[in-house]
Amino acid sequence: MAQNTVEKTPVTLLGLGAMGTALARTWLAAGHPLTVWNRTPAHTTALGAEGAGAADTAAEAVAANTLVVVCLLDDASVDEVLAGTDLADKDLVNLTTSTPAQARARAEWARERGARYLDGGIMAVPPMIGVPEAGGYVFYSGSPELFERHRQTLGVPLGTTYVGEDAGFAALHDVALLSAMYGMFAGAAHAFALIHKEDIDPAALAPLLADWLVAMAPAVHQTADQLRSGDYTTGVVSNLAMQVAGTPTFLSTAEQQGVSPELLSPYFELMRRRLAEGSGEEDLTGVIDLLVH
Amino acid sequence: MAQNTVEKTPVTLLGLGAMGTALARTWLAAGHPLTVWNRTPAHTTALGAEGAGAADTAAEAVAANTLVVVCLLDDASVDEVLAGTDLADKDLVNLTTSTPAQARARAEWARERGARYLDGGIMAVPPMIGVPEAGGYVFYSGSPELFERHRQTLGVPLGTTYVGEDAGFAALHDVALLSAMYGMFAGAAHAFALIHKEDIDPAALAPLLADWLVAMAPAVHQTADQLRSGDYTTGVVSNLAMQVAGTPTFLSTAEQQGVSPELLSPYFELMRRRLAEGSGEEDLTGVIDLLVH
Ligand SMILES: NC(=O)c1ccc[n+]([C@@H]2O[C@H](COP(=O)([O-])OP(=O)(O)OC[C@H]3O[C@@H](n4cnc5c(N)ncnc54)[C@H](OP(=O)(O)O)[C@@H]3O)[C@@H](O)[C@H]2O)c1
Ligand SMILES: NC(=O)c1ccc[n+]([C@@H]2O[C@H](COP(=O)([O-])OP(=O)(O)OC[C@H]3O[C@@H](n4cnc5c(N)ncnc54)[C@H](OP(=O)(O)O)[C@@H]3O)[C@@H](O)[C@H]2O)c1
Repeated sequence: MAQNTVEKTPVTLLGLGAMGTALARTWLAAGHPLTVWNRTPAHTTALGAEGAGAADTAAEAVAANTLVVVCLLDDASVDEVLAGTDLADKDLVNLTTSTPAQARARAEWARERGARYLDGGIMAVPPMIGVPEAGGYVFYSGSPELFERHRQTLGVPLGTTYVGEDAGFAALHDVALLSAMYGMFAGAAHAFALIHKEDIDPAALAPLLADWLVAMAPAVHQTADQLRSGDYTTGVVSNLAMQVAGTPTFLSTAEQQGVSPELLSPYFELMRRRLAEGSGEEDLTGVIDLLVH
Repeated sequence: MAQNTVEKTPVTLLGLGAMGTALARTWLAAGHPLTVWNRTPAHTTALGAEGAGAADTAAEAVAANTLVVVCLLDDASVDEVLAGTDLADKDLVNLTTSTPAQARARAEWARERGARYLDGGIMAVPPMIGVPEAGGYVFYSGSPELFERHRQTLGVPLGTTYVGEDAGFAALHDVALLSAMYGMFAGAAHAFALIHKEDIDPAALAPLLADWLVAMAPAVHQTADQLRSGDYTTGVVSNLAMQVAGTPTFLSTAEQQGVSPELLSPYFELMRRRLAEGSGEEDLTGVIDLLVH
């Protein structure tokens, strides 16, 4: 009995969809006592067979442990599931995708019910759960004490990145990164479309494209520095005037290749608008100012 | 005289703008005899002082060497500059940015004048020239013999990537990669806009954003494999139906943060259209089919 064992924090998990099931397995594998509940009982039963305590109701699952993790479809389902539960003095960690406003409202809602609250935004897909080398992580925001208390337990399935006391910040970071990713995917879609009628193997373009995107991604550091200083001319290599002058080549090429410019032209249009404001010597950063109101 | 020296190919370079000047310096530094010409003579004089032969006319510069490299503003300026030159039996390498159609027409035009032709698309900015660790390179397409013959000389300022005999392919690859980059920049602009009214340091978001984009860029390999096979359901983790279901979170967050969705919504709209065609089990690859006509 004098072994070097550390008592593992017991976890309650509500929601055994694709993501919840993956999370559950890593906690079980790491030796955390786990109580689970899911609307469709079949999933609960399966996890029960793997060693989890299977609760019959959400209220029962919540009552079982202090740390309650929720991973449901959306904010509305969180409302539904937690409605009949007693959250007084619970450590509520909500990994359900939500908007910043929903997360902030949920934090307030939890506070009213006597619970501490931490919101999470999962930057991973289920196959990355419990696979540290896959690099997935969860953005957390809300109670810093709660984060510190459960950091290790929360770190079992995925890395943890705390981004602030404002409960909405995890969702905001999550949405910001995924939005940027969709922009990159849109650009890549345009690139693949450009070669569709040519005798060019998409698998030959892919490594060139991936390497180029990887090489250009660090440009966001200069953008950030410019946003901080408010001076968008620092460190500029190809200024806005030069870049706008280049856009006809991109649009003509799209036309020659029979490709709709709809994924590129909104950005070019903002570049042109910013240039028209007399910002030809700037970097592309001024486009950001045109997006906000 | 029995030294282990290799004779360096003499180069003629037309165009001493920001890019041409950077190229010129690397050839001089590497010991290549260099003849230069520029419309505005001041630039030619400066390079002359650094060891280049300064020609008074483009025709004279072209006559000086077999290998003639052109780096001018655009295709129209190439027309103007080469008009009065004798290109018979020349190795013409055109690094001027052009569309694939312009490059193909220029190759034909060169052939009619008795020249061999190689087109280039420069994937670098002047500070990267002659700095191998910066990773810049030039896409080349056109005569494979010409590429092989001058590979080493062309490799002095930047890496070389040959992409095919079709003279338009260098421009096409160039435009494809830069288009994808603009998509990524558009996504990053949206991400920075989302945090503009929050107490979040853009320089704290930047490394998270850069790492995420770098981690997601290799998704283009799966896209390429799906395009090759025509089966867009292979290896799907988050299918189109799930991803479209997530778009309201992105659009609501943009609205909450006072950010125009104009850079994101065209891609989401194509996702929705593809889903409406019954492709919910697919990856995002089907969007590409909607771009081409
Ligand atoms: N999967 C991913 O790649 C991924 C990545 C990042 C973030 N996320 C987020 O993780 C959360 C869960 O995703 P998932 O992939 O596990 O989704 P999923 O497989 O669709 O599972 C949804 C879960 O929510 C439950 N649920 C839905 N509506 C409910 C309701 N009204 N009342 C009670 N339970 C309800 C489902 O119960 P039933 O089993 O009874 O239907 C199931 O447990 C979502 O917020 C998602 O955005 C997922
Ligand atoms: N700079 C970059 O970051 C970059 C990156 C990739 C590719 N490129 C491409 O490289 C090429 C050159 O770019 P750059 O940056 O060197 O441009 P630049 O600095 O503007 O220089 C343009 C050059 O073209 C000459 N020129 C323009 N119109 C002419 C005409 N009608 N007749 C004769 N000469 C003319 C200019 O001569 P004057 O000196 O007399 O004006 C100058 O030598 C362009 O096609 C560009 O797209 C540039």
